[in-house]
Amino acid sequence: MPHRPARYDVLFEPVRIGPVTAKNRFYQVPHCNGMGRAFPSSMAAMRGVKAEGGWGVVVTEQCDVHHSGNHQREIRIWDEKDLPYLTRATDEIHRHGALAGVELAHNGSYVGNLESRTIPIAPSLKAVRGNLPITARAMDKDDIRAVRRWHRTAALNARRAGFDIVYIYAGHDMTLPVHFLSRRHNQRTDEYGGTLENRARLLRELIEDAKEAVGDTCAVAVRFGVDELMGPRGIGSEGEGRDVVEMLAELPDLWDVNLSNFDNDGQTSRFSDEGFQAEYVKFVKSVTSKPVVGVGRFTSPDTMVSMIKGGTLDLIGAARPSIADPFLPRKIEEGRFDDLRECIGCNICVAGDKASVPMRCTQNPTMGEEWRRGWHPEYIPPKDTDDTVLVVGAGPAGLEAARALGQRGYDVLLADRRRELGGRVTLESRLPGLGEWARVRDWRLTQLRRMPNVQLLPDNEITAEMALEAECSLVAVATGAQWRADGVGRSHSFPMEGLEGPAGTPVFTPDDIMAGRLPSGRVVVFDDDHYYMGGVIAERLAEHGCEVTFVTPDSLVSSFTQFTAEQKRVQRRVMEKCAAVHTSTALVRAEPGAARLACVYTGRETVVTADALVLVTGMVPRDELYTGLRAFGEEALGAAGIRRVVRLGDCLGPGIIAAAVHSGHLFARTLDTAITDETPYRRENVELDWDQPLPASSGGAWGRQEGQGHGR
Amino acid sequence: MPHRPARYDVLFEPVRIGPVTAKNRFYQVPHCNGMGRAFPSSMAAMRGVKAEGGWGVVVTEQCDVHHSGNHQREIRIWDEKDLPYLTRATDEIHRHGALAGVELAHNGSYVGNLESRTIPIAPSLKAVRGNLPITARAMDKDDIRAVRRWHRTAALNARRAGFDIVYIYAGHDMTLPVHFLSRRHNQRTDEYGGTLENRARLLRELIEDAKEAVGDTCAVAVRFGVDELMGPRGIGSEGEGRDVVEMLAELPDLWDVNLSNFDNDGQTSRFSDEGFQAEYVKFVKSVTSKPVVGVGRFTSPDTMVSMIKGGTLDLIGAARPSIADPFLPRKIEEGRFDDLRECIGCNICVAGDKASVPMRCTQNPTMGEEWRRGWHPEYIPPKDTDDTVLVVGAGPAGLEAARALGQRGYDVLLADRRRELGGRVTLESRLPGLGEWARVRDWRLTQLRRMPNVQLLPDNEITAEMALEAECSLVAVATGAQWRADGVGRSHSFPMEGLEGPAGTPVFTPDDIMAGRLPSGRVVVFDDDHYYMGGVIAERLAEHGCEVTFVTPDSLVSSFTQFTAEQKRVQRRVMEKCAAVHTSTALVRAEPGAARLACVYTGRETVVTADALVLVTGMVPRDELYTGLRAFGEEALGAAGIRRVVRLGDCLGPGIIAAAVHSGHLFARTLDTAITDETPYRRENVELDWDQPLPASSGGAWGRQEGQGHGR
Repeated sequence: MPHRPARYDVLFEPVRIGPVTAKNRFYQVPHCNGMGRAFPSSMAAMRGVKAEGGWGVVVTEQCDVHHSGNHQREIRIWDEKDLPYLTRATDEIHRHGALAGVELAHNGSYVGNLESRTIPIAPSLKAVRGNLPITARAMDKDDIRAVRRWHRTAALNARRAGFDIVYIYAGHDMTLPVHFLSRRHNQRTDEYGGTLENRARLLRELIEDAKEAVGDTCAVAVRFGVDELMGPRGIGSEGEGRDVVEMLAELPDLWDVNLSNFDNDGQTSRFSDEGFQAEYVKFVKSVTSKPVVGVGRFTSPDTMVSMIKGGTLDLIGAARPSIADPFLPRKIEEGRFDDLRECIGCNICVAGDKASVPMRCTQNPTMGEEWRRGWHPEYIPPKDTDDTVLVVGAGPAGLEAARALGQRGYDVLLADRRRELGGRVTLESRLPGLGEWARVRDWRLTQLRRMPNVQLLPDNEITAEMALEAECSLVAVATGAQWRADGVGRSHSFPMEGLEGPAGTPVFTPDDIMAGRLPSGRVVVFDDDHYYMGGVIAERLAEHGCEVTFVTPDSLVSSFTQFTAEQKRVQRRVMEKCAAVHTSTALVRAEPGAARLACVYTGRETVVTADALVLVTGMVPRDELYTGLRAFGEEALGAAGIRRVVRLGDCLGPGIIAAAVHSGHLFARTLDTAITDETPYRRENVELDWDQPLPASSGGAWGRQEGQGHGR
Repeated sequence: MPHRPARYDVLFEPVRIGPVTAKNRFYQVPHCNGMGRAFPSSMAAMRGVKAEGGWGVVVTEQCDVHHSGNHQREIRIWDEKDLPYLTRATDEIHRHGALAGVELAHNGSYVGNLESRTIPIAPSLKAVRGNLPITARAMDKDDIRAVRRWHRTAALNARRAGFDIVYIYAGHDMTLPVHFLSRRHNQRTDEYGGTLENRARLLRELIEDAKEAVGDTCAVAVRFGVDELMGPRGIGSEGEGRDVVEMLAELPDLWDVNLSNFDNDGQTSRFSDEGFQAEYVKFVKSVTSKPVVGVGRFTSPDTMVSMIKGGTLDLIGAARPSIADPFLPRKIEEGRFDDLRECIGCNICVAGDKASVPMRCTQNPTMGEEWRRGWHPEYIPPKDTDDTVLVVGAGPAGLEAARALGQRGYDVLLADRRRELGGRVTLESRLPGLGEWARVRDWRLTQLRRMPNVQLLPDNEITAEMALEAECSLVAVATGAQWRADGVGRSHSFPMEGLEGPAGTPVFTPDDIMAGRLPSGRVVVFDDDHYYMGGVIAERLAEHGCEVTFVTPDSLVSSFTQFTAEQKRVQRRVMEKCAAVHTSTALVRAEPGAARLACVYTGRETVVTADALVLVTGMVPRDELYTGLRAFGEEALGAAGIRRVVRLGDCLGPGIIAAAVHSGHLFARTLDTAITDETPYRRENVELDWDQPLPASSGGAWGRQEGQGHGR
């Protein structure tokens, strides 16, 4: 076993948190995951795997305390009916010696209560977040007492469910205690409004209530966003953010501090570096003696040590790094630094949560599959066939397939036509802001280079004939996809007019740009894809000196980045870099030296000058090897000892890097990527509990009476 | 009992559909409802209530046949585990003598399979709908055979679950059979592509397979969108839409025909009238002898009769009208025409489904509450207290409260300061396109005027002193809300600068416009609300001759109307009516004769001339009566015989009309509107089935081995 240098020992010191003690300084802060109440077994298993991976504390996502603040996706602790789900999670967490925490929440005007239909509540009258046509009403004193009662009941129930740490959640501009704190939300004139002391009253009371209810055996933590990054309009770490911590400094047993709102807290690597929150939260330890946990996409053990030794934090908080590598603490503990699978900061995990499905992870294809498919991030069944495998293409799918097959003990050949391995990951990681994405390649190559049973064959363009002679029983074609140059995509089902002929405007694709073939002059970038590529290509071209006109049929620039919590930053950057940005606009056709655009609503057309067009539209698999091999026929393949030819990743269905990695991993586990008749995972279905009694407050029961007639 | 004129008898003739017979011509076509697989008991009870209300056929929403086409919300028939949910629904439907139908679906490239992570499939390579970064792969012959196998298995399972009618769903541009039909989706060169006959092959095979599998006892229906309203780019009722029906005319047992996509099929009353689909679907009966069902927001028995007698339809299809009044057929059967509660065509039901919560209905506050609260649309428990009730305000909340209290047998006084009752409904229904919304008022007034125990007091401004002397034990304040004139809303937490003082630009609110106080000249409409009001106000002002500049911080005009499936039509109309539309733009402040705007991304400011500002921002409850009464104190109220004062509807929390009606109804049932500690409805929770065996195809099981170490 590798040896851990002594300088990392500090990370494995126990930390006392009120009445409980964390075994080390690795602290998985609360994070949503898209499993929540809809996939509770998946959620529990995922938390358990993190505890197994060495995290000293594992906390749930936010947990609703009451139907008047009902988040649709996340777990609940409305009453006893919720306890079995939570107990399942705490059991899994405790089984591996970690402390279990729960983040109690009432979302106030952050939610519209679409399920419960209860009018939302807020310190002052307030339209609810987003565009929902709902206004939260101003709470009266009865409401405040009720919120305290609901939190207190929830804290007691949380203890019954086995939690060791109970949070009061005052972060991300998402809950009642922070709404009371915030001048934007709180215009009350009673003792809960006005001065900061008054605005902090509810938070103080909730902490006191929880300590009184469960503080003898459970730690009471506060999660607080110390800076909203909005200057004097919001809470700031040099203003009221600091004042709040000073005021309540010794009251909670732990301070979990971060930036607010979530877009600021969960910044992608495109916009921030590891440790980006340190400058905002470092004051906290100077004003409290209680342990402090903070986050910042920490994956470097040296950075972690510097956070502790430098007096910034007591506990290394992590959400995304614990998703990318649930075994991060164990690997550091054992000195296996090469095995650390670092988060790339892409936020595809956040996208899963926002879409209400079990989150996935680009680096960790087992995320969300722990319970439902029985996938573990570290262990994998050893090989159980005599197959040998040729994997063609060392992009994310091929690398992961070869790595996981190698881990299983299979003999693998991994070939790629390029000298430099990594496929799209290598190319895309050179685009503006995507540098950390190279970690997808780097971790896998490091693992692969240690495997005697895997042979890497860079600079090898494999033809169908060569594959036939490779003496492998399985051939996995992971040759990726290419961007289309014909304009076909979401807007155009058929090739775009005006792209043909010598008089046509020159056309480029992202593949050209990534290969270093760049246009110059006035360039129209047409983004019909809507994730990151259009935006980063525009940025790259602007850096190159092009005058860029950005055109997209969507109403937002890079609209899918809403799911990765970075859309506002993306659109701001694209607007700043480009000469013009036309949203809700289609590219109708190319014309000589110009592009004809049309409003997607009215059809009104305009023409813009264009020395070149860059089309970010659809992708086509590079599947010539697959079709070539299939063309030999089953018999010839069999004669060559090939029992199956499959496609992986983008070659099967062009998509995101996370999907490619997942596809490679799936193949390594099942030796196939075909669709199965049987559902390949365990499902989580709703209980049919038809005979449950009606709640007393429902006002229901059919009430049909003889003589009442039909409604009269 | 009232008498039904003989001319309506035709609606109650039985109709043979293949091997089964519908008892009448009332046919609840498939419709989503936001309950689906997440709220299966709610779904089953809702379907049962419709059967009880007299619909001869009740069909489910779409029902996924396989994990490779996984819609997140709707019901599933992936395997036997789904049958208990479906059986619950068919039992409820059969209990009341209706036929039960199920709409089998495979969504192909319409979905991203975010849950299952399976690469989606399509006739030809295709980016999936919307902005998901996923590309569906082109199906090979094995895939086509698999899709047929999955449908066949699903049909057999559907019969086991008790269904009488099995659909092949080829509508709304949402499923594989229609993707194969469509030239936009299908560029295949084999026998499933090219000619229409080839493109229709999969649909034909699915129908034949279903008939072969279950056709002896179940009817096989096809739901087909005959016109996509996109001219030669799509399927049209004078082109391939007609050709498809001609080609397969006698193959299915029933044709369920409509417009495609859903935005066209489910048009709101703002954009279409009752029967708007007739001109597109009327050809169908001329080319097939099979029964034909179609939709068009039918609520008039005379229109229904004309559809039958005129040879347009055999069965009166309804989705939304069956939601607004599940008892529509029974009421027509019994000649109770005044009791028909007509759909207003607002699509707030669709919004519930799109938001993945049990749908609500503006007209029917019991929708979605049948099982969970035990609410029935027709029956309500008789009064069980000695209360008498003063309801102040005859808007949607007050009208519904008085009506349902009256139905319970309570003595009710309903007062309103205006001569004309209806509150906001009366005012808003005069805005462009909202005329049908008056039905919310009209149905309730018709019911109330027949109730001897309810006294209507129009033209009565009730003061706190008057309420004290009304000799009622309950006072419900339903005095509505008003639009703010200070700019406070989502963008501005504090009053907007520049609105004060004599030099300021004149400011108007929707209340002014609805009261007939209109500006003239160049008008800036600032929509910080995002539902319908900003758009219809702009339209009203443009009709009045104003030159309107529409400004919204959202990237879309009336963005919430995405949930009601009308956003594209709304934005097109607003862009056509307005001189300029600025999206993603904030109104920073008013300046003399101008408005200062700013880009919400970059902060770049611009100034536009403005003779007047119309602010569509936040709303404030008109709760003076409530606060006035509360100010008397419990003792004085008690002395006056008042045991409770409550707020209803917009006076409690300004919102949509559906919420106001629901609030009034809730009060009538519970005599209170306070938030209860206990959840006031039965919940539907996920089963914890931790020990379910792993699927054979999962590739899972921890696989930890001695000596395997940590991942090596």
